[in-house]
Amino acid sequence: MNTKILLNERPDGEPTLENFKTVKEKIRSPKEGEVLLKTIYMSLDPYMRGRMNDTKSYAKPVAIGEEMEAGALSQVIESKSKNFKVGDFVEGRTGWQDNPTVDEKKLRIIDPNMAPLSTSIGVLGMPGTTAYVGMHNFAKPQRGETLVVSAASGAVGSTVGQIGKIYGCKVIGVAGTNEKCEFTKSELGFDECINYKDDDFKDQLKSACPDGVDIYWENVGGITFDTVMPLLNDYARIPVCGLISLYNATSMPGGEKDRLPLLFRQVLTKRMMIKGFIVFNHYDQREESIIALSNWIKEGKIKYKEDFVDGLENAPNAFIGLLNGKNFGKLVVRVNHDPTI
Amino acid sequence: MNTKILLNERPDGEPTLENFKTVKEKIRSPKEGEVLLKTIYMSLDPYMRGRMNDTKSYAKPVAIGEEMEAGALSQVIESKSKNFKVGDFVEGRTGWQDNPTVDEKKLRIIDPNMAPLSTSIGVLGMPGTTAYVGMHNFAKPQRGETLVVSAASGAVGSTVGQIGKIYGCKVIGVAGTNEKCEFTKSELGFDECINYKDDDFKDQLKSACPDGVDIYWENVGGITFDTVMPLLNDYARIPVCGLISLYNATSMPGGEKDRLPLLFRQVLTKRMMIKGFIVFNHYDQREESIIALSNWIKEGKIKYKEDFVDGLENAPNAFIGLLNGKNFGKLVVRVNHDPTI
Repeated sequence: MNTKILLNERPDGEPTLENFKTVKEKIRSPKEGEVLLKTIYMSLDPYMRGRMNDTKSYAKPVAIGEEMEAGALSQVIESKSKNFKVGDFVEGRTGWQDNPTVDEKKLRIIDPNMAPLSTSIGVLGMPGTTAYVGMHNFAKPQRGETLVVSAASGAVGSTVGQIGKIYGCKVIGVAGTNEKCEFTKSELGFDECINYKDDDFKDQLKSACPDGVDIYWENVGGITFDTVMPLLNDYARIPVCGLISLYNATSMPGGEKDRLPLLFRQVLTKRMMIKGFIVFNHYDQREESIIALSNWIKEGKIKYKEDFVDGLENAPNAFIGLLNGKNFGKLVVRVNHDPTI
Repeated sequence: MNTKILLNERPDGEPTLENFKTVKEKIRSPKEGEVLLKTIYMSLDPYMRGRMNDTKSYAKPVAIGEEMEAGALSQVIESKSKNFKVGDFVEGRTGWQDNPTVDEKKLRIIDPNMAPLSTSIGVLGMPGTTAYVGMHNFAKPQRGETLVVSAASGAVGSTVGQIGKIYGCKVIGVAGTNEKCEFTKSELGFDECINYKDDDFKDQLKSACPDGVDIYWENVGGITFDTVMPLLNDYARIPVCGLISLYNATSMPGGEKDRLPLLFRQVLTKRMMIKGFIVFNHYDQREESIIALSNWIKEGKIKYKEDFVDGLENAPNAFIGLLNGKNFGKLVVRVNHDPTI
């Protein structure tokens, strides 16, 4: 049987377990050009919250009754494809299911000898490429600059900060627990990391950035941007790849004062750049990013932390926690877990 | 005697004539490396309003009692410079004065046979280079895209729109009088131009952009951006080179709702780019821009309109009018006017 987790109803604000529905269906034999997979590692990422809404966005929403979207690392267990044989490891957007039958075009082959398989959905997968593309194309870090990165211990943020260090930046993380902050400093080599829940977050961040902020990596929105805004230097770059603090919002947050004119004045006088991007539009750089990142991992310049959850059935709960910052590192669901892999 | 117009006091909101003070001083003989000039065409530009404030910005404010800043086209009447001889025409940031003595390093030579001299402070000067740099570096217009340009009949906006047409864009102007709108269509070849003072401005702009907006050239801020915002397409680019609607504001305008989160959401989902720039940081492209623009002028692809005011003494009043959109075309003060030039 193939177990699938479907979108049962659209969330109103924070998702609940009732928004998801688990169904079992008979495994479908692959047709020509298809493969049957056994899902091993399934990725949970904040962007999935957007797909649960029925609003116009860069990707079409998941329909009610359709399986939730996800990238996953899987093994081929039956193949009608010339490109993949039984036993191959593959990565692709195969959804929240444990034995899907999918079109070969969705998949790329993963070499199990190159790096741990789970990295293909993490530091050597979508989040890693996000960090690489955003830094390379938009942030363009220069030696001696100050980089502030939000969601600093997360899959994207942790990689962004370490790339910043490679380029000689002073790297200041922002995270939601002291443990996460400590990790980015002691394990990842960040210069400083501030807990945004601290009462004196604003003062701490200002003290940590005596030369202002040249790059602000926007992963979250909300209080972190508000605090960074007055610290931004001339020519500051703000890559925007996520706004997790808004994803569960049922109405736009914000005070009574419209800060749009203020932002534009800063954009002009400081000659800033704000650039939104979605990694899926930059997969022409995926190979390049994986080569760069895997070299940096081999050289010990990039480390990564994974937060494993066992069992597809626990995906909804883990996903709800992710949106509240409960994960610590890249959130990965172990499905059909084989401890020998 | 050299007549100078000084900043007498800082304006509170809209400048008044009392903010300026005219003084006469003895002409100073040039020292080694200096030249004495006769100002012929002096430029008035919105950015000068920023220099009248004592606030941190990209350039330091004009001090009380110091002459107002301006670029001007002048003729050399006495020279202690190896680079400039008597009779030469030069352009540089020589301020609101009619017979200044200035350092040769401030000046570039202007060939009077290349184009009318006044263009050296207009379409072949700072405003023209602003349009060129912003389009070339940041807007990157593509054939078939829709470009909306604010302050459409102004020195920068008129050039931006015509560059847009050269690149095959659909060009929609926004201006403050029907006469200005008509001019951009009949003379400059814009596809449409909307008067932002019309009650149905929003509906008119929407109708003029059935395929949305790919490039919004931000010259003004305020109502024009507010109206364009919902029309922006995926991958929209917003070069920000001016915010004239804010320059006289004594407090930041805007409604009671903070639209910053909404903007960031749009930036992310539409993968937009917002980029502030100041042309003075891009003068490595000045020669390139002048060559391109003068070729386009020769080919009849770029036209320009100048709005002349006679006499340095009328500069303050003309400048106050400029901030209210009273000019029609590039505002130029004729100083020491010689009708044979």
